[in-house]
Amino acid sequence: MTVDVFASAASLAADVRSGRISATAVASAFLDRIAAVNPVLNAYTDVTAARALAAARAIDDRRSRGEALGPLAGVPFAAKNLFDLMGLPTRAGSLINRERAPASRDAVLVERLLAADAVPLGALNMGEYAYDFTGENAHDGACRNPHDPDHMAGGSSSGCGAATGGGMAPISLGSDTNGSIRVPSSLCGTFGLKPTYGRLPRSRSFPFCDSLDHLGPFARTATDLALAYDLLQGFDAGDHACADRPAEPVLPGLDRGIGGLRIAVLGGHFDTAGLPAAGRAVETVARALGAGRTVDLPGAAEGRAAAFIITNTESAAFHLDRLRRRADDFDPETRDRFLAGAMLPAAWAVRAHQVRRWYAGQAAALFRDFDLLIAPATPMCAPKVGQKTMELRGRTVPVRPMFGLFTQPVSAIGLPVCAVPVAGAGDGVLPIGVQLIAAPWREDVALRAAAWLEAGGVAQATVPAL
Amino acid sequence: MTVDVFASAASLAADVRSGRISATAVASAFLDRIAAVNPVLNAYTDVTAARALAAARAIDDRRSRGEALGPLAGVPFAAKNLFDLMGLPTRAGSLINRERAPASRDAVLVERLLAADAVPLGALNMGEYAYDFTGENAHDGACRNPHDPDHMAGGSSSGCGAATGGGMAPISLGSDTNGSIRVPSSLCGTFGLKPTYGRLPRSRSFPFCDSLDHLGPFARTATDLALAYDLLQGFDAGDHACADRPAEPVLPGLDRGIGGLRIAVLGGHFDTAGLPAAGRAVETVARALGAGRTVDLPGAAEGRAAAFIITNTESAAFHLDRLRRRADDFDPETRDRFLAGAMLPAAWAVRAHQVRRWYAGQAAALFRDFDLLIAPATPMCAPKVGQKTMELRGRTVPVRPMFGLFTQPVSAIGLPVCAVPVAGAGDGVLPIGVQLIAAPWREDVALRAAAWLEAGGVAQATVPAL
Repeated sequence: MTVDVFASAASLAADVRSGRISATAVASAFLDRIAAVNPVLNAYTDVTAARALAAARAIDDRRSRGEALGPLAGVPFAAKNLFDLMGLPTRAGSLINRERAPASRDAVLVERLLAADAVPLGALNMGEYAYDFTGENAHDGACRNPHDPDHMAGGSSSGCGAATGGGMAPISLGSDTNGSIRVPSSLCGTFGLKPTYGRLPRSRSFPFCDSLDHLGPFARTATDLALAYDLLQGFDAGDHACADRPAEPVLPGLDRGIGGLRIAVLGGHFDTAGLPAAGRAVETVARALGAGRTVDLPGAAEGRAAAFIITNTESAAFHLDRLRRRADDFDPETRDRFLAGAMLPAAWAVRAHQVRRWYAGQAAALFRDFDLLIAPATPMCAPKVGQKTMELRGRTVPVRPMFGLFTQPVSAIGLPVCAVPVAGAGDGVLPIGVQLIAAPWREDVALRAAAWLEAGGVAQATVPAL
Repeated sequence: MTVDVFASAASLAADVRSGRISATAVASAFLDRIAAVNPVLNAYTDVTAARALAAARAIDDRRSRGEALGPLAGVPFAAKNLFDLMGLPTRAGSLINRERAPASRDAVLVERLLAADAVPLGALNMGEYAYDFTGENAHDGACRNPHDPDHMAGGSSSGCGAATGGGMAPISLGSDTNGSIRVPSSLCGTFGLKPTYGRLPRSRSFPFCDSLDHLGPFARTATDLALAYDLLQGFDAGDHACADRPAEPVLPGLDRGIGGLRIAVLGGHFDTAGLPAAGRAVETVARALGAGRTVDLPGAAEGRAAAFIITNTESAAFHLDRLRRRADDFDPETRDRFLAGAMLPAAWAVRAHQVRRWYAGQAAALFRDFDLLIAPATPMCAPKVGQKTMELRGRTVPVRPMFGLFTQPVSAIGLPVCAVPVAGAGDGVLPIGVQLIAAPWREDVALRAAAWLEAGGVAQATVPAL
């Protein structure tokens, strides 16, 4: 039996558990795929082939001894290179961090996938220190879109989008501060989950902006996304922001459908007038989910402004010593933003936190009337690699900060969001996604809607020609 | 029966309920006392005589109709002038705020005392915008110590200390950001409670520094303090930081004693070497409570530094427009500190919040081994009015910021503290207090220890000669 690198994680695990295929064969097929397409896509910065094959062999040995295997038996995965991976320095997209000692222990979320018998393929490219929506990186080169390598993968979890979208890892782990899971998900045509702030522990990952950083999975199907998410859930004391609440598995109820959910489309700040692909994506999903109403999320623009300031000031504080001593070793595209953040007055940050709190109250009020909100994930499909500006609603704006136009207001207040790729909505081969946004701690609602859309053929991760 | 203005609130209420004395007589006696000593002490900025007498008459009328009266029946109280009091502009110690419209509704905590049939005597002097430990005020003049009017009352809740210490209000309401309840409590010889951050709602009070502001009561006995605190407890949605937890009355268990409590003296940052009065106070209380061990609270000095920065930056952000437009109308002693805060970089504030979080973890670890910690409340007894510097551990330091040396590290992480006056520990007529510090949400422990000390004659609000 040959291995389909675009098969779902669930089916690969079933095949490994049943013995239709060995974990070693799966790992080898993915390593071959990486060898074939990674030179073009530049998704991986480290391929841990020996570790992957050893893990696969151990799984095969355990199966041959009749031992039960985990829910991700033999499923390859990879992690954005800000996750600690044993034996690798956690570079977080930077040059400076490569001087760090190799990690002596995996990040907690990596450990949890390994505990489910997933197989670690390596570390993924990302925008330097996660301050990015493009997937370009001055040190590691641009990560490219699997559907058309002339185009961006999106960032900052660029390697996740390219690897999972490009058949190099059925599941990948990314991070999202202002859209860094949802933007590459949209541009690369994958499913991506940014859970509620505080849901998944960030222990042993390299931070960007503590009060906005989220970790979450990428997958090629809604079921895989829910499967991974369930395995990733649970408290860990290593992350001060991690909520001490029990895991709330979503997979058991994933097929319950959308009956009873009050669903609306977000207008106002999230309006797609003049953005044809984003508009098609939102309309397609709204029709499929029977969302007739368009509602406003008051404060979204102000909340986004607050997120800019909070990101800028917190990350600058975190990098202050590096900025002082090593400014020339930063990617120029991130350095200048960090430096700007280092010079902002504290009063701006205080006000930004006040605005964020007020805006969270506005969102909470809206969720009294609605269970799920539909918004575009990105203003358009992937720009070309190297493209610095884009036309947005009649204005020429810079790509790098503006690609988070629709994602940033949502993460600003930690709402759970599932990004889903919308079949037929993109521009030619380039896909585009939408955001399914739920109330805090209701990842289940967003994932159920994603599964419903997938079952109806509306949401789909297309297979690239590459 | 004549009214003793130094009687406890509990006994005054019992006398009013039983009819031994009328609420009107009580109110009149306190208004007479205010007329006699307030010209010297300058504790009240507004005396609401008509309102007090009307409230007292209404209570007497209700009693004459056989209606049940509340637990504070006829007990006079006053509030620091940052609490909204119907009909008065909430000046918060400033000149600028006097242009505000009169408050149309009382602060929530004022309403709660009124609901218990307490009688409102007026608004109390305070340091401008609460940025003060001295009780001096460029607009309203210095509030003076009831035990010796040549000395400070302490701040910023100066009027609370002077009024409750000086027989002008058995109960008063103050606020504490870095020590503003505990410092005047110590200098004026009253009991004062700074509850856990988030315990008492701040709705309709004028803020200083949102993430550090606490409200709390002053009283002349531990029982009165517990009585007032119980009446003040309970959620209110008007304060975003107010914890949504049920009231946990402490009065029913107040006399349970200190059996089983693990009590220690704080050393390190809180050491009293070279501070004789503070040392006497701590030693007296430690002996009475059987606290043999001295322990360190790691991070106290760093936590205090963080509190300085957080106070400075948050309050500057809050006052930014006033600083831009009305700088000359500020008290010069506060203006320059606010202006400094407006110029601090955001990175300082971000780091300060990180330090605070780390330090809170250190304190939490200590509370696994101890239930109650004893620390000095102030480095010494009240300085003279107008005194700008003091000798502290061999160095000449400014009074205004340094009088919070021991209080600031405790409020920095929102711990509940009861300040108690220690009999015989002060310098001549000038009293001094200690802090009884409990784990978050364990006001009951601090208040039980205060009641125990009072029962043993160790803690006592002395009656001034004035």
